[in-house]
Amino acid sequence: MNLFDGGKAPNPRRVRIFLAEKGINVPIVPIDMGAMEHRGHIVTSRNPLARLPVLELDDGTVLSESVAICRYFEELQPEPVLFGRGALGKAQVEMWQRRLELNLFFPVAQAFRHIHPAMRDWEVPQVPEWGEANKQKAVDFLVLLDAELALREFAAGDAFSIADITGLVAVDFMKPARLSVPDELTNVTRWHQALKARPSASA
Amino acid sequence: MNLFDGGKAPNPRRVRIFLAEKGINVPIVPIDMGAMEHRGHIVTSRNPLARLPVLELDDGTVLSESVAICRYFEELQPEPVLFGRGALGKAQVEMWQRRLELNLFFPVAQAFRHIHPAMRDWEVPQVPEWGEANKQKAVDFLVLLDAELALREFAAGDAFSIADITGLVAVDFMKPARLSVPDELTNVTRWHQALKARPSASA
Repeated sequence: MNLFDGGKAPNPRRVRIFLAEKGINVPIVPIDMGAMEHRGHIVTSRNPLARLPVLELDDGTVLSESVAICRYFEELQPEPVLFGRGALGKAQVEMWQRRLELNLFFPVAQAFRHIHPAMRDWEVPQVPEWGEANKQKAVDFLVLLDAELALREFAAGDAFSIADITGLVAVDFMKPARLSVPDELTNVTRWHQALKARPSASA
Repeated sequence: MNLFDGGKAPNPRRVRIFLAEKGINVPIVPIDMGAMEHRGHIVTSRNPLARLPVLELDDGTVLSESVAICRYFEELQPEPVLFGRGALGKAQVEMWQRRLELNLFFPVAQAFRHIHPAMRDWEVPQVPEWGEANKQKAVDFLVLLDAELALREFAAGDAFSIADITGLVAVDFMKPARLSVPDELTNVTRWHQALKARPSASA
């Protein structure tokens, strides 16, 4: 089994954090996204969408999509549980994973890709007006999230989950996107600091 | 248990098709999205993101996000399996559900929301250039999907799954977004016709 990894890009990091939380070691094949190696044959022959990470199993079967790769490992090694317990717990983790992905991670990524000069060859065409609109979407969601985090320790409940991993990566990604968590959102800040302090955050 | 439903909008339809495939009946509370009722108290008190569908359990617990609601029912009633079997099967369904959602359903929705005049109050600001860019993203993905569907019957393998539900809803949503499946993509057309012919498609 090999994990074709993309270094500091946010999606590869989600999977590395997940594996660190599980205590699972997978051999890493580093791919230099800064040098656009993810658009080369090594990656596109495995994932025609030219995105990382990609997991290749020993029989050559390929899995892409960070959350799908994480779910594969959750099924192989359920503990510690990171996708929730029971029908309701699993649904709540999925709900919050999606909310954090669709309403925070994606808007932050759109702001970065459509505004940052370094992304000119990555996002064609760059549409700066769309990037700007996403800054407000991200902040609007953080306000909602702050109210939720006033009620509990983690995004989806009292246990750490993949929803928190998506949240950590999204908040950390705000810096290159030239966004910051508003000072008054103290619950978001408390939660983010706690996630950053976990050993997995440096994976 | 009540399902707050949004009529012909694509996300409410995903959940209704899923329930029809499972043979599960849930009492429906109709919400008129055309009249913007999803931004009223009935919905926002349950889902502050003001989106549908929303499932409310008998104890008042609320679930939103279509795929999370579907997973709840998958866990309650596993058969017929719609999220895959075994670690690899589940990961492959999740991979294709996400690919169809992120690379087809979302681009089609963006094209619709950022270009269609009826969406002026829904998507603020509308960014027509971003809408246009998404038309190409959707078609590019259909080309990739066509090559995959030459190899198997359904999106994620030989069995119908939630990935196909997302695909059906996405392709049907192309019409109001003023997009169409290119004639030469015969595998996509065969797959789409087969999905449309299932009784669940009219749910």
